[in-house]
Amino acid sequence: MDSKEINFIISAFTEYNPFMKTEDFMEWFAGRKEAHKFKIELIPFNEMREWSFEHSTGNLVHSSGKFFSIEGIWVETNAGPVSTWSQPIINQPEIGILGFLTKRIDGILYFLMQAKMEPGNINTVQLAPTLQATRSNYSCVHKGKKPHYIEYFLEKSGSKILVDTLQSEQGARFLKKRNRNIIIETSKNIEVLEDYCWLTLGQLHKLCQHDNLINMDARTVLACIPFMTYRISGIRADNLFETIDKRKMVNVDILDSDTFKSQVLSSALDTERHLKTSDEIISWFTELKIRYELEVERIPLKYVKNWQCSDNEIFHDEGKYFSVIAVSVEADNREISSWTQPLVKSQDTGIVAFIMKTINGVLHFLIQAKVEPGNFDVIEMAPTVQCITGSYKQDKPLDRPPFLDFILNLPPDQMRLSTLQSEEGGRFFRENNQNMLIEVGDDFQVDVPDNYIWMTMNQIKRFIKYNNFVNVEARCLMSSLGFI
Amino acid sequence: MDSKEINFIISAFTEYNPFMKTEDFMEWFAGRKEAHKFKIELIPFNEMREWSFEHSTGNLVHSSGKFFSIEGIWVETNAGPVSTWSQPIINQPEIGILGFLTKRIDGILYFLMQAKMEPGNINTVQLAPTLQATRSNYSCVHKGKKPHYIEYFLEKSGSKILVDTLQSEQGARFLKKRNRNIIIETSKNIEVLEDYCWLTLGQLHKLCQHDNLINMDARTVLACIPFMTYRISGIRADNLFETIDKRKMVNVDILDSDTFKSQVLSSALDTERHLKTSDEIISWFTELKIRYELEVERIPLKYVKNWQCSDNEIFHDEGKYFSVIAVSVEADNREISSWTQPLVKSQDTGIVAFIMKTINGVLHFLIQAKVEPGNFDVIEMAPTVQCITGSYKQDKPLDRPPFLDFILNLPPDQMRLSTLQSEEGGRFFRENNQNMLIEVGDDFQVDVPDNYIWMTMNQIKRFIKYNNFVNVEARCLMSSLGFI
Repeated sequence: MDSKEINFIISAFTEYNPFMKTEDFMEWFAGRKEAHKFKIELIPFNEMREWSFEHSTGNLVHSSGKFFSIEGIWVETNAGPVSTWSQPIINQPEIGILGFLTKRIDGILYFLMQAKMEPGNINTVQLAPTLQATRSNYSCVHKGKKPHYIEYFLEKSGSKILVDTLQSEQGARFLKKRNRNIIIETSKNIEVLEDYCWLTLGQLHKLCQHDNLINMDARTVLACIPFMTYRISGIRADNLFETIDKRKMVNVDILDSDTFKSQVLSSALDTERHLKTSDEIISWFTELKIRYELEVERIPLKYVKNWQCSDNEIFHDEGKYFSVIAVSVEADNREISSWTQPLVKSQDTGIVAFIMKTINGVLHFLIQAKVEPGNFDVIEMAPTVQCITGSYKQDKPLDRPPFLDFILNLPPDQMRLSTLQSEEGGRFFRENNQNMLIEVGDDFQVDVPDNYIWMTMNQIKRFIKYNNFVNVEARCLMSSLGFI
Repeated sequence: MDSKEINFIISAFTEYNPFMKTEDFMEWFAGRKEAHKFKIELIPFNEMREWSFEHSTGNLVHSSGKFFSIEGIWVETNAGPVSTWSQPIINQPEIGILGFLTKRIDGILYFLMQAKMEPGNINTVQLAPTLQATRSNYSCVHKGKKPHYIEYFLEKSGSKILVDTLQSEQGARFLKKRNRNIIIETSKNIEVLEDYCWLTLGQLHKLCQHDNLINMDARTVLACIPFMTYRISGIRADNLFETIDKRKMVNVDILDSDTFKSQVLSSALDTERHLKTSDEIISWFTELKIRYELEVERIPLKYVKNWQCSDNEIFHDEGKYFSVIAVSVEADNREISSWTQPLVKSQDTGIVAFIMKTINGVLHFLIQAKVEPGNFDVIEMAPTVQCITGSYKQDKPLDRPPFLDFILNLPPDQMRLSTLQSEEGGRFFRENNQNMLIEVGDDFQVDVPDNYIWMTMNQIKRFIKYNNFVNVEARCLMSSLGFI
């Protein structure tokens, strides 16, 4: 077995942490929030500094031409009930870094976490990866300080790269945006700065089950952790635990007492009992990429139809979907101490949910192939249900997304986890989604609509590894599962 | 072992074919060419029917708006010695089908091959897949006949899908073009029409070693055949041959007598002895995708700089790179009997070459991460050397592509295969590339420039499976290797 994978698994089973006990964490975290002064205020667009509406296009841009801009797109597609529309979208062509610095101490892999303020965050401060920076950010376009620990990610000699892939962000809000999701193991001595702390993967998984605590940037990277390789794949869950137990490093009792968790781990490791082979899944995906037509053209923001711009807000005529607002921010612990910026504000809460079912003795996840206009390649693999609730309230039942009514009327005993999670607070203003993991019984249909397919966790993980297959909502939802 | 993989392998080791003996093939093939009347003539642009230069853009377009068009792109990049240029490019947004219909007869898998005329073909007729059709083609935009056998690819019930992925075409000539590469196994009775014949994979591999015989569309699909799965991966070459031998279906003597072929097969099956893990390769690829900037904008053809348009040709001021010409075609066995169309004509022959070296006891291929303006995502994995020879003749040695001089001055005993192969004759006029497979010895450097990496065949195959990693030149070159 690759030592990388065993180190991830051991860390996932470890909740004891001499540097930061789980029971002390909340106090430390509250302390970090209180230690700093943050002030976030909604402001009219004309009070923004460095940001303005470009005359010829109406696009909302930064004076440097960097960071991001709010532009328009025109969309035509044969997927879904609406065939053509235009909308504002965030254009951020540069690839940012979402990175964890990790270190093995006494045989246990620890992740360096950051208590980070973002202007759009619910609760202002959330727990972030070690580094979260756009290129404009770490090349100091804002003329402020460099982000902490950036040097480990730019100059990687003496470090081991554990995860390093390009992953997409929200295709409904971003135009083909991608981030480098990276985990580095260092052997150097690391100074732990005041807003940072070491946590095990086991602790992180526990904290993922709290509402709005672990930010989206951390969750997407956690979802890229490969718990299985080809070589580990033959090992059944039980043998794995024996291996771990022999090393006397972690206590695996939690597993015996928790059937659902053992099912999840088994789904992550199993390479035999899937309903569809990976070739069949790729063929299904190929067929849908050809069936769905998606034409997206960048247009000036001022030509976007059915949207208006007031002094304070860019919004849809009927108040649907989202709006663009402006904030002013003061913070004493960021690269610069005050700035203004636009944020995207969703009009309603969203739902992201996986339906899970045991098929051939192993837990399968119901994946949806979803067309979103900002997607890099027409469709990505999304959760079973992913929608804004408000947009569908008025719709007739047949126009609603499949499985939405089922989820809204769910028997409570099928809900395995339900939390509220935010989107990225650097771009989204207090966006709040209900994350749900639902385990259905034998009576639930195996046959599903054409654009849905059952996959094991092992299969989903492999598609994450090869980039641009699994969308950010599905990845973040998976990180609540624990052990994966 | 998956029955799909064993069936491919058995077919690859089978050269005996009662329907078409290898020694009879050439006569049959020459007969197909003689049986039809083909007439291809260069014509001035203004003699084209249905094709014209669009007034507002200067683009060369079909009156239906379908098929393809010749447009312009403006390119800016930090890769290579030239940082910005504009050029004509083929825009063909629709996804075509390149498909093989196969059938198992007496336990052997046969591929239904087509002797097909394309106007740009060297030798006029080459051996093509069963089906080779754009959507405009099979939806009869030309108001002609439907392509033969299309029904098996549109309605796949009763068939087994063996391969089904989206693969890219030439990024230097096409703007993000992709085709569906598909292999179907049917259990139905198939009528073999007059220009078609059944061949085994073993016969096809033999024929790939002839100059300009197997067309590019067939070679790219052959390269997608997965000869290994996770389950087959533990089996070493020797055990595999025992398995096959026991079935008494094929003669594996050819292998014992041929060391190079056995090395190739071992490289295709081995999952242990690679120099880099797949995670390391993905990290290398991620790093390069971030390092290389590539901005491509579609522009009207009339704004392309340093290119001119005469009555007969669109060409570069210095006669470099390629030109666009027009042809009139008459053929008695195509969907329509006469038409006119533009073709792209390369100014010089090209070189595509893999350098191969035994590392850790297994054959590795030297892969290049290559930026091309029409690429779907900045870089793809390309052969060690891929260039037009003419463009580099005047360049100083340091400006020439790495390893080009090495290949041009190669000791003859290191050349494992050297053939001439065409590009797609429906778009390219007699384009001819020298395909080379070169095996270097222990004295050849293991350390290579940043944008090169050593990979086993098994690893290359896995990247082909997940789409948009391996470019068409690398895929086609691999199909000359045999057994893969």
